[in-house]
Amino acid sequence: VILTNGEIDAIAGLLSMREGWPFTIYAHEKVLATLKSNSVFNVLSEKNVKRQAIAIDKAFEPALPDGTPSGIEILPFEVTGKGAWYLEGERREGSEAAGDTLGLRIRDKTTGKFFFFIAACAEVTDDLKSRLKGAALVFFDGTVWRDDEMIAAGLATKTGRSMGHISMSGEQGAIAALAKLGIERKIFLHINNSNPALLHNSEERRAAEQAGWQIPADGTEIVL
Amino acid sequence: VILTNGEIDAIAGLLSMREGWPFTIYAHEKVLATLKSNSVFNVLSEKNVKRQAIAIDKAFEPALPDGTPSGIEILPFEVTGKGAWYLEGERREGSEAAGDTLGLRIRDKTTGKFFFFIAACAEVTDDLKSRLKGAALVFFDGTVWRDDEMIAAGLATKTGRSMGHISMSGEQGAIAALAKLGIERKIFLHINNSNPALLHNSEERRAAEQAGWQIPADGTEIVL
Repeated sequence: VILTNGEIDAIAGLLSMREGWPFTIYAHEKVLATLKSNSVFNVLSEKNVKRQAIAIDKAFEPALPDGTPSGIEILPFEVTGKGAWYLEGERREGSEAAGDTLGLRIRDKTTGKFFFFIAACAEVTDDLKSRLKGAALVFFDGTVWRDDEMIAAGLATKTGRSMGHISMSGEQGAIAALAKLGIERKIFLHINNSNPALLHNSEERRAAEQAGWQIPADGTEIVL
Repeated sequence: VILTNGEIDAIAGLLSMREGWPFTIYAHEKVLATLKSNSVFNVLSEKNVKRQAIAIDKAFEPALPDGTPSGIEILPFEVTGKGAWYLEGERREGSEAAGDTLGLRIRDKTTGKFFFFIAACAEVTDDLKSRLKGAALVFFDGTVWRDDEMIAAGLATKTGRSMGHISMSGEQGAIAALAKLGIERKIFLHINNSNPALLHNSEERRAAEQAGWQIPADGTEIVL
């Protein structure tokens, strides 16, 4: 299990893992510190579940439960985001947000093929653009269609941006920002239930698809 | 939301509640302390989600989100159990286990009808028998069929008893213990996926049903 941030939707699934099954949690030390300070995660006993720190721009190769190398190289990198909001107000060790939000480049060491996994991203920076340029496949943060949609729907008082998520639409949105990078296949994930692009017949779905994006169905299998 | 113990399966669902929706968490102060010490539960902000301590043998009437009384009286009572196992090894304030595991008597104040909800129970004591005697409906801990089934299946190294759960079968089991109390309707819940009574065509299912118990299907609706 690789955790790319410490938000509830990234870590709560750990509580549904079978206690006795051996696996490894890979996460930035910030996220590991959150797991350590929350005793509920002790259900994953250290005997069966190892916790391994990963660092920005340091590639690693996860091991299979039996200890053999997986043949998959993971490169975590920093993306613009924010700290888990339930920790807001807690003392942070520094003013830097480094490590709060990671993207992953996931590469098959045999074939050399790779793709990107970016489930949370507040802004597409030039650095991120240069990473993604020409990629065969990118999974990207599709939380909201527009920044204020949760407020407009009366679901919350937060904007997408305040939750660390770029919008799909708009001049600063993901569709525009990733339009001219020559990415072969672009798939949104982490789509909030307030996002109209989730609806099969919505204008927003049509606009996303016309712009070359896929909104995947549950159970979609993808071959790189 | 009424929490009857602090185990993961009792509290993890809180993390799936919509953040902005107002409701109240009712729980023993031990369980509230666990929630407080685990920062992940701060996603349920105190602004929207009140946390209300309940006490053994003190009836209370939950309020609806708008503050009006629900018309339902809840009586929490002590049942034999154990502390949440992920807290094992932590310093406890006393040697008593009181409050670790609660049963509930849930009563409609208008009609006077009531039923019992007991999702975890290590032993059917005489006190518990006298409470349940003649009840119209009892939901009862059906975690395991026999004490060592998880070990026998290679799923875990723990017995049902060591997890605070009585077995369905056997001389000391729930079926035998609740057999002669004149309970009108008995329904097992909290059934582990190792329990063969979950299988529609198993001998164990047949034995439970012949003994007057129901293994409910998902979505079952019950009218008292």
